Amino acid sequence: MSGDIRVGVLGSAGKVGQAIVAAVEADDDLTYSVGVDKGDPLESFTDSETTVVVDFTHPSVVMDNLRFLIHNGIHAVVGTTGFTDERLDTVRGWLAENPGVGVLIAPNFAIGAVLSMRFAAQAARFYDSVEVIELHHPHKADAPSGTAYRTAAMIARARAEAGVGPSPDATTEELDGARGAVVDGVHVHSVRLAGLVAHQEVLLGTEGETLTIRHDSLDRTSFAPGVLLGVREIGDRPGLTVGLDELMDL
Amino acid sequence: MSGDIRVGVLGSAGKVGQAIVAAVEADDDLTYSVGVDKGDPLESFTDSETTVVVDFTHPSVVMDNLRFLIHNGIHAVVGTTGFTDERLDTVRGWLAENPGVGVLIAPNFAIGAVLSMRFAAQAARFYDSVEVIELHHPHKADAPSGTAYRTAAMIARARAEAGVGPSPDATTEELDGARGAVVDGVHVHSVRLAGLVAHQEVLLGTEGETLTIRHDSLDRTSFAPGVLLGVREIGDRPGLTVGLDELMDL
Amino acid sequence: MSGDIRVGVLGSAGKVGQAIVAAVEADDDLTYSVGVDKGDPLESFTDSETTVVVDFTHPSVVMDNLRFLIHNGIHAVVGTTGFTDERLDTVRGWLAENPGVGVLIAPNFAIGAVLSMRFAAQAARFYDSVEVIELHHPHKADAPSGTAYRTAAMIARARAEAGVGPSPDATTEELDGARGAVVDGVHVHSVRLAGLVAHQEVLLGTEGETLTIRHDSLDRTSFAPGVLLGVREIGDRPGLTVGLDELMDL
Amino acid sequence: MSGDIRVGVLGSAGKVGQAIVAAVEADDDLTYSVGVDKGDPLESFTDSETTVVVDFTHPSVVMDNLRFLIHNGIHAVVGTTGFTDERLDTVRGWLAENPGVGVLIAPNFAIGAVLSMRFAAQAARFYDSVEVIELHHPHKADAPSGTAYRTAAMIARARAEAGVGPSPDATTEELDGARGAVVDGVHVHSVRLAGLVAHQEVLLGTEGETLTIRHDSLDRTSFAPGVLLGVREIGDRPGLTVGLDELMDL
Repeated sequence: MSGDIRVGVLGSAGKVGQAIVAAVEADDDLTYSVGVDKGDPLESFTDSETTVVVDFTHPSVVMDNLRFLIHNGIHAVVGTTGFTDERLDTVRGWLAENPGVGVLIAPNFAIGAVLSMRFAAQAARFYDSVEVIELHHPHKADAPSGTAYRTAAMIARARAEAGVGPSPDATTEELDGARGAVVDGVHVHSVRLAGLVAHQEVLLGTEGETLTIRHDSLDRTSFAPGVLLGVREIGDRPGLTVGLDELMDL
Repeated sequence: MSGDIRVGVLGSAGKVGQAIVAAVEADDDLTYSVGVDKGDPLESFTDSETTVVVDFTHPSVVMDNLRFLIHNGIHAVVGTTGFTDERLDTVRGWLAENPGVGVLIAPNFAIGAVLSMRFAAQAARFYDSVEVIELHHPHKADAPSGTAYRTAAMIARARAEAGVGPSPDATTEELDGARGAVVDGVHVHSVRLAGLVAHQEVLLGTEGETLTIRHDSLDRTSFAPGVLLGVREIGDRPGLTVGLDELMDL
Repeated sequence: MSGDIRVGVLGSAGKVGQAIVAAVEADDDLTYSVGVDKGDPLESFTDSETTVVVDFTHPSVVMDNLRFLIHNGIHAVVGTTGFTDERLDTVRGWLAENPGVGVLIAPNFAIGAVLSMRFAAQAARFYDSVEVIELHHPHKADAPSGTAYRTAAMIARARAEAGVGPSPDATTEELDGARGAVVDGVHVHSVRLAGLVAHQEVLLGTEGETLTIRHDSLDRTSFAPGVLLGVREIGDRPGLTVGLDELMDL
Repeated sequence: MSGDIRVGVLGSAGKVGQAIVAAVEADDDLTYSVGVDKGDPLESFTDSETTVVVDFTHPSVVMDNLRFLIHNGIHAVVGTTGFTDERLDTVRGWLAENPGVGVLIAPNFAIGAVLSMRFAAQAARFYDSVEVIELHHPHKADAPSGTAYRTAAMIARARAEAGVGPSPDATTEELDGARGAVVDGVHVHSVRLAGLVAHQEVLLGTEGETLTIRHDSLDRTSFAPGVLLGVREIGDRPGLTVGLDELMDL
């Protein structure tokens, strides 16, 4: 549906919003229609004939935004957090009443992060061992990262479904913390280093061979290509889509 | 179909054959039935009630082997090279007459190599740039490696199908060879280094992020887990299967 | 000599100059005295009691700058290019007449690049094989990079001095360019990939083990810590110093 | 002193001893004289005019071995563990009485491990942050590895001597173990993965750049080149030398 996609941005004055506006404007197939910030009327989107809205706002306002958009036939690409199962069901209800509308809600728009999680989960059942190393700048407050938690959970589920047992580990003498944290049975190591941005490595191994899937995010605009991918595809996917990978035909 | 799988090995006295025999014997679910080498009668397989035969032999004998196996209702897992389209068609013809039999023919049984090629091809259309670095011991005669050729071809096909253009490259001043070889439009670099075995890295990049898929093969038995996977699955897949990944439910 | 270092910057309005001014101002031990740009009088440095001047300007003006600074007893840290042996001799002559003054001229101020070149050269004679992979953004015009040329030259010299022969290589069948460019007998591979900035990996290998020295430069300010190191040390090193590593007590 | 070096091996029937005998025999400059195992007389070394003996035995016998060797004018290269300061002083005493004899005692003969520890220590004071990741096969009982402990200790000492503070770390919310073990103030992460052998990565970072020093030991003979280096050099270094790096002219 390229060519006629008119893209509006919620929170267009914020840091993330500005980056999305810039990415839309730099794209030949998309047209930036209007930005809406705190205090601006949502009607700007209907007035400007916007076809897709990107929402990176706040859990306290995102449901009101989505109700307006869906009821006005506007597709949405949402990076705002805080979607419980209950909230997702509410969105599904609105979409059932407006069957032509598509909404994408995703916790992560970095294509490389999405791909590496999926590949890790797919590969996990073919290997005896799997561990995760995530590496970030030293200003990060939490360890492991949210992406590492999700990656470990996806790996654990894939291994459980395939009936694969735990990774072998003969450690009997461990200095406290050496073997990392354990998330759903998967060892996760968190490195904090000046000069780094956001990186993750999944290591898989079996006798005689290893497979490493590494994702490096070198600046904070790495979500932009994923958002544009969502904007281009969501018009052709009516209903609710959760997770960018569902749009990627993998 | 685990439990009753009786595995025969063609070329059981060779280096690869010995490794496969050892792997079968070490596996709780499989039973080693018999080995057949140059001069031995293929009837040993029927006499020993073998259900699956592994063939890592030679292009000059593999077709005779397959005709015998298929006509006697024995499944086959084949790592022998030299399968032209014509040969594949011949095998399909034999299988059409023996509809319960399954044959797997694969150029590569290293699970990590198979996975990394597939992941590279899946990811290739989401990135502006992709290059391949393969690294091997210094006794290797050919550069790039066969796996690197196949990887580049799969990447190129995936990008062509998605309508992705060539990787950007502003090089105007190049010392001969610096930018590597070009296989189907993909730059491939071959490192030869004492201490290495067989390794490959696919690098994919777009503004602000990169994805790296690396496979390390640390000894020569890394084909064994893939062969066993084929042995376990081929009985449930009648007809011809080309490529280990087709059996992997990816 | 920390505490009393008053730092002036030549070319302070340019991109590099601005980054240096910012780095000096952010440093507790240094005081920014004055910036001098095209058209401004060099006397600003003497008027402001500047003790060290940083010069990232142009080959056409750097010699005039240095003559003024040396004759006025001001130390200099120089990243400007174009220093021939003849120019270095001229600078040495001026310094001989002004024995208290120190001048540092260096082709590279990224500490990691300097360290990795030196470590590569130190390690090179203990390994059978060595190759260099440099990886940059796709807007770079030349391949290999200047740093890769210097690294290969340093490795080659170290191996020659130790009487180490060429890296083993059994390649007989090569697709044009696969084995990279050859700089002083060392194979160098140049990767160009969107999402990268400036990276280099030196791989050394001998039977059973490899050593990898990798440098990642993630933004363009990575020269700043090296410049500040030079500024702090040069006052205690009268005469001409060529190369940042000479100041690093390695 | 190549050409006339006659090398004896203590513990020549053991796994390590056999590898050393094989390496000596494969070297053009060295001659294998005799092997001595449990129960064999040490006089075999004097009878065979051995000039250098390699000792990879046991703490319970190594002191008797060294006394014999030193008093008979035979140089020694020792990989046996358990050398306390007291034992080292005893050896120094014997050497003082036999001034022409050289003894090398080293905890690690893998040249890459020795180089990477040294480079890490040299680089450590130029970076804000440093962490260590060591990766081994899953049969290893202790975590971190002995090499990682020594590496962290060397890094910590270098940083203390240079007055560098601790690596920055804003972690306030940590899942137990995520940030690894802490050895002398340095975070160390231990990965255990099927398919790996023995690997270590030191990551150093400062604003905008990182340096990574990685050592991969791919088989168990990686100590051999270091032992041969010791054998060749120790005859020219009378007295006690502790650590292979002292012989490497770094």
